[in-house]
Amino acid sequence: MEGKTRVIIYGLGPIGSSVARLVLERPNLELVGGVDIDPAKVGKDIGQVVESGKNLGIVIQGKLSRVLGKTEADVVLHTTNSYFDLFTPQILEIMESKMDIVSTSEELSFPWLTYPEQATKIDAAAKKAGKSVLATGVNPGFLMDALPLSLTAICRRVDHIEVRRIQNASKRRGPFQAKIGSGMTVEEFRKKMDGGRMGHVGLVESTGMVFHTLGKKLVRFETKVEPVLAEQLVETPYFKVPAGRVIGLKQEACGYSDQGEFLNLFFKAALDSPEDQDTIIISGEPNLKVTLQGTNGDTATSAIAVNAIQRVRAAAPGLLTMRDLPFITLS
Amino acid sequence: MEGKTRVIIYGLGPIGSSVARLVLERPNLELVGGVDIDPAKVGKDIGQVVESGKNLGIVIQGKLSRVLGKTEADVVLHTTNSYFDLFTPQILEIMESKMDIVSTSEELSFPWLTYPEQATKIDAAAKKAGKSVLATGVNPGFLMDALPLSLTAICRRVDHIEVRRIQNASKRRGPFQAKIGSGMTVEEFRKKMDGGRMGHVGLVESTGMVFHTLGKKLVRFETKVEPVLAEQLVETPYFKVPAGRVIGLKQEACGYSDQGEFLNLFFKAALDSPEDQDTIIISGEPNLKVTLQGTNGDTATSAIAVNAIQRVRAAAPGLLTMRDLPFITLS
Repeated sequence: MEGKTRVIIYGLGPIGSSVARLVLERPNLELVGGVDIDPAKVGKDIGQVVESGKNLGIVIQGKLSRVLGKTEADVVLHTTNSYFDLFTPQILEIMESKMDIVSTSEELSFPWLTYPEQATKIDAAAKKAGKSVLATGVNPGFLMDALPLSLTAICRRVDHIEVRRIQNASKRRGPFQAKIGSGMTVEEFRKKMDGGRMGHVGLVESTGMVFHTLGKKLVRFETKVEPVLAEQLVETPYFKVPAGRVIGLKQEACGYSDQGEFLNLFFKAALDSPEDQDTIIISGEPNLKVTLQGTNGDTATSAIAVNAIQRVRAAAPGLLTMRDLPFITLS
Repeated sequence: MEGKTRVIIYGLGPIGSSVARLVLERPNLELVGGVDIDPAKVGKDIGQVVESGKNLGIVIQGKLSRVLGKTEADVVLHTTNSYFDLFTPQILEIMESKMDIVSTSEELSFPWLTYPEQATKIDAAAKKAGKSVLATGVNPGFLMDALPLSLTAICRRVDHIEVRRIQNASKRRGPFQAKIGSGMTVEEFRKKMDGGRMGHVGLVESTGMVFHTLGKKLVRFETKVEPVLAEQLVETPYFKVPAGRVIGLKQEACGYSDQGEFLNLFFKAALDSPEDQDTIIISGEPNLKVTLQGTNGDTATSAIAVNAIQRVRAAAPGLLTMRDLPFITLS
């Protein structure tokens, strides 16, 4: 029997903490290190910070290099941030240390449309290291790209794909509730949204993966965001939002081929939404309608990242996307 | 640009004919030959037999060897029959001619549980030939195995999987309507069913794939079949069934691990059923419920077989299953 896969978790926010708890449950994985830039976490026992219920004798370091001085690992679970310019130095540093990477960074999930040069650089670094990099999550990484593409397996012809994802943000982590604008005025929301770095990240990555995989040319891409407003006082453990303020957002993305709209992605996440539900509608031959319930983003993203570890370890070196791997399942 | 992939279709019943029509629509595929044992088809133009709307200048042969004497091909779309003892010599003959195979033979989709020795023989022949063999279809091959396993990607824990497939057989091909017992008396149905070679084939294959992929030991497997009876006269283009006679069947399969029932597969196909629907229920963390509409078995099976061609051509040699390949999509 092979030894356990040794895992370092880089980024111990809510997703990284959820990943850590799952790694601890899996008999084939061993948590060997944790990194976070938050001074409130550095120096603490990782078991305490991720609320695993016990100390693990592993001290959180503020830099990856400090972990590597003390321990060896096979894979880094990278859960730091969504944005290419912020995570690229982290990915390159991990590659220099020759470890596989499973990341939840949205912009890395399918960077070939929006960041082809940076993607090429990471791909080259991974191949040089002989290691693999995959970014995944429920969305992007599954619900609006890999899953609808998987469903086209049973289609003779596809004319249009629509995915609608409705998430009740009251069930989500605090940073997610913040990211969708909870508590803001409409003006604050619009200003913050115009400044970037707010809202759901991933619609353009999913669009890129769908078009590229199906061999279609993306001739136009449109996206828009609207706030969802509280009709009455809404409370969560993290926010208390009076009527008229923002409780979430609606985002829509449309991808056009030279024959018109081919892909429509709709994402709504708001506090106090009714039941979570996702719908995938594929028009063609046949017409398919698929609905999903229970795909909570935090649970699903931590699960798919951990479940991906063995597939990534077995894959050829380079920057991978979900379309390059056999299906991910519990492993 | 590479040349077109040259395809021979082996078995020109309704599925093979549907496959042929789809091959003709795809610009990257070229239909170069057809084989069928039916004397009524041998010697006829394949375009006429598959109802493509025109003659194609390709004469159907009664044996594969007769096609190979006249033409070269890259892949054989194998759509002859469901049963290992019947299709094995066909698969081995194709391997000797060094062509990749995409088959719709149910028992070949995941043979490692029920036919491990024969599977090993085919795997060895494929590796010797440097070619790949995949059997797929909507069920087995997708709906009750690959798709539920794909969905577990977003699960932290899986305790139980249930799949329910309801097909309105009035929308299906004639041989399918016959296979589910249409027009029989209950006595005829039970006698025929006891003799084997009737009913839906694939539940044990799907069970094998799910258990094997998740690393679970199948300690018990139970299956049962019941007829569905007409409450009034039911008519299709192929059958006219009076009240009290059989219009279809219900099949159930249960797979048990040492911790109890883990997998429950339910398949109902009957004439005049209400709307087709499939439901996948995964119990664990999270609980997932997925419903699908539009997965007509004939359309879906011909599509997934043709869509699999490029993935199979790119795969490593050997006997593959759906869990070995990246997701299949239109290609």
